[in-house]
Amino acid sequence: MAGREETELARWAAGALEGLLAARTAAVRATAPASAAPPSVPLLTLTGGLPDPETLPRDELAEVTRLVLAREGREALQYGGPQGFLGLREVLAERASRREGLELTAENFMLASGSAHALANFCFTFVDPGDPVIVENPSFSGSIRTIRAHQAEVITVPVDREGLRTDALAEALERLAAAGRRAKFIYTIPTFHNPTGSTMTLARRRELLELAARHRVLVLEDDAYGELRYEGEPVPSLYALSGGEGVVRIGTFSKTLASGLRLGWTMARKEYVDALVRMRLDMGTSPFASRVVAEYAASGRLDRHVTRMLALYREKRDTMLSALERYCARWATWERPEGGFFLWLRLAPGADCGTVVRTGLELGVATVAGTGFYSDGDGAGYVRLAFSYVALEEIEEAVRRLGAALARVYEGA
Amino acid sequence: MAGREETELARWAAGALEGLLAARTAAVRATAPASAAPPSVPLLTLTGGLPDPETLPRDELAEVTRLVLAREGREALQYGGPQGFLGLREVLAERASRREGLELTAENFMLASGSAHALANFCFTFVDPGDPVIVENPSFSGSIRTIRAHQAEVITVPVDREGLRTDALAEALERLAAAGRRAKFIYTIPTFHNPTGSTMTLARRRELLELAARHRVLVLEDDAYGELRYEGEPVPSLYALSGGEGVVRIGTFSKTLASGLRLGWTMARKEYVDALVRMRLDMGTSPFASRVVAEYAASGRLDRHVTRMLALYREKRDTMLSALERYCARWATWERPEGGFFLWLRLAPGADCGTVVRTGLELGVATVAGTGFYSDGDGAGYVRLAFSYVALEEIEEAVRRLGAALARVYEGA
Repeated sequence: MAGREETELARWAAGALEGLLAARTAAVRATAPASAAPPSVPLLTLTGGLPDPETLPRDELAEVTRLVLAREGREALQYGGPQGFLGLREVLAERASRREGLELTAENFMLASGSAHALANFCFTFVDPGDPVIVENPSFSGSIRTIRAHQAEVITVPVDREGLRTDALAEALERLAAAGRRAKFIYTIPTFHNPTGSTMTLARRRELLELAARHRVLVLEDDAYGELRYEGEPVPSLYALSGGEGVVRIGTFSKTLASGLRLGWTMARKEYVDALVRMRLDMGTSPFASRVVAEYAASGRLDRHVTRMLALYREKRDTMLSALERYCARWATWERPEGGFFLWLRLAPGADCGTVVRTGLELGVATVAGTGFYSDGDGAGYVRLAFSYVALEEIEEAVRRLGAALARVYEGA
Repeated sequence: MAGREETELARWAAGALEGLLAARTAAVRATAPASAAPPSVPLLTLTGGLPDPETLPRDELAEVTRLVLAREGREALQYGGPQGFLGLREVLAERASRREGLELTAENFMLASGSAHALANFCFTFVDPGDPVIVENPSFSGSIRTIRAHQAEVITVPVDREGLRTDALAEALERLAAAGRRAKFIYTIPTFHNPTGSTMTLARRRELLELAARHRVLVLEDDAYGELRYEGEPVPSLYALSGGEGVVRIGTFSKTLASGLRLGWTMARKEYVDALVRMRLDMGTSPFASRVVAEYAASGRLDRHVTRMLALYREKRDTMLSALERYCARWATWERPEGGFFLWLRLAPGADCGTVVRTGLELGVATVAGTGFYSDGDGAGYVRLAFSYVALEEIEEAVRRLGAALARVYEGA
């Protein structure tokens, strides 16, 4: 049929792409391509913040999908509105209320296609180009990329083992105020932080909320890992401490259930949810996936699955901590995270994370360089390990390889 | 547990919402709420551009989901990258190449969470605030809302039975050029247009591409309905006529399969796909849904389903055309669409579409006022009917009610 038509000027667009892009696009780099040379031994990966792939509940989800399509297939296969399936929002309200003693309803939730999407929708709704946005340093690089793509001015505040440094936050906010400016929001992962694994203390949380309220800055609480606590007493969330005043929270099923479903949510006071829904331009998150997960949760399967996962991840964490003591303690230190997916190695002086990661790849273990989590080029002294994805029985070997890499880097062994 | 903490200034955020919103958000209205008073008789709906709900392939999708989760559940339930599942992109390349005699590969496709999402991603990648964007008048209101949300200056060009009026397009482009400006893109639904049902002629398509190339303006071809042709010879798409030079196309499974899956795509030359993928901030479209639909298509089920749907929608269209002749010809005229989901009624002088729609609701038939499709307050003389969603055996009765409404409006009957 119709092939290529010979029109005057037809090839103008090929060379013109760069000039046609929006300013925000020019500010965003492409994500890194997949890693380069294949390693000499089969690779053990400690990279992604992903659930254990062997425990993904394939059979249960197939069974639930069959049930949902038989019972409510008509609704599951049609548009479901921009706020998302009511039944799943009710499940979320019940779960969050139960976990934290809150009184939430479905009105406090908007479904999103993953929490990355929830963050993008939040930025699209609130951020004008040039707005200052305060982020933790280090932080999850994907989130920083999203904030930058909305042309915010990213201002970093350091994190220590007690979480975001509120003294530095106060300084940053004062500096802005002195210049007659105001941050639009503070992006924080207070519980089982990515990448550090640390949890913000209650005192710091209170200080953060005080500062945010005094300066009239919103707080975006990224709670991707909050449900995954393996030990210790839960610390009240920023949302719970504030009653949702000035705090918007995002969450996801990507860590507790499966990232491939692309299901997350935003939790906020109703008027904030309304504004976020207004800026949905995608006809809503999948009713198909939402109804499958609602049934998965309402039938009790989700709670049972999370309970199983908590036991598994606790064991993985402990196995990795033991192996680190055995193989890596000469060249690195770390904290013991009470939950989440990550261990954050502080390298002894004398080596750069890039060299450690590269050497690890050569020896068959993949880790993530700390520099990727810093917005200011810092982080050379850190390496992030995820204990969630790697098989339990391979953790010892993965960490042994990392230890061999450290020995080679530090001692030429 | 932790209830609401009494912090100083805690309630600042509730009243401050309006002041915190981005400028783009202030420019976007909430979508209309669901219709108000319930009708006196059960409502027959001719409103949404939706597939027939009784024919949604629930059992087949349950079977395919079971198969996919058993065979590739691990991949289906994990992140799949920002461009989307390769296997589904290969299916799309094969289908589009076959349909139009093109030589497309998976590199020419990015998956999206519906074509509305594909449009939003395109705008996010290319539109700066204030950029002129040319749209058809009338057009799909959801798309116009998305373009406005990116703070484009929306410039309208009228549509007639041959599609977008290229003489008016030439004038609009010249006017911009005279002011030293240039539109960023032209948004068009050339085939089975929403709402008019018309298809742009080949001559107009060639003129449009010439004008776009001369003025160096991108063309965004919305092909939501293009596969749904019930009669007549296919007209080459803008993408085919241009070889993709300066033309980006969006498509969807929402019309041929099921809107609840939230699966669409963008089709473009590779360098354009790369730019669009770069501005994905959502960790990619659902691998779960994408793999289910890829298997549904690769197994031949999709082609068989579309063939069945073509026969059904043809019969629905013909039934509605006959009923219109019988019940509505005194007060309205219409064209016969060769495909798609819509009939576009031109009301005789003397009545306003709002009155017709309201009276129809009182008599138990839901239709859409023409004004919703115009960006400039025009459209009072039109009503849109969808023949796709209503059951075949209810079309006669639905149109009879509409005729009764017209009789009441025009003659007080």
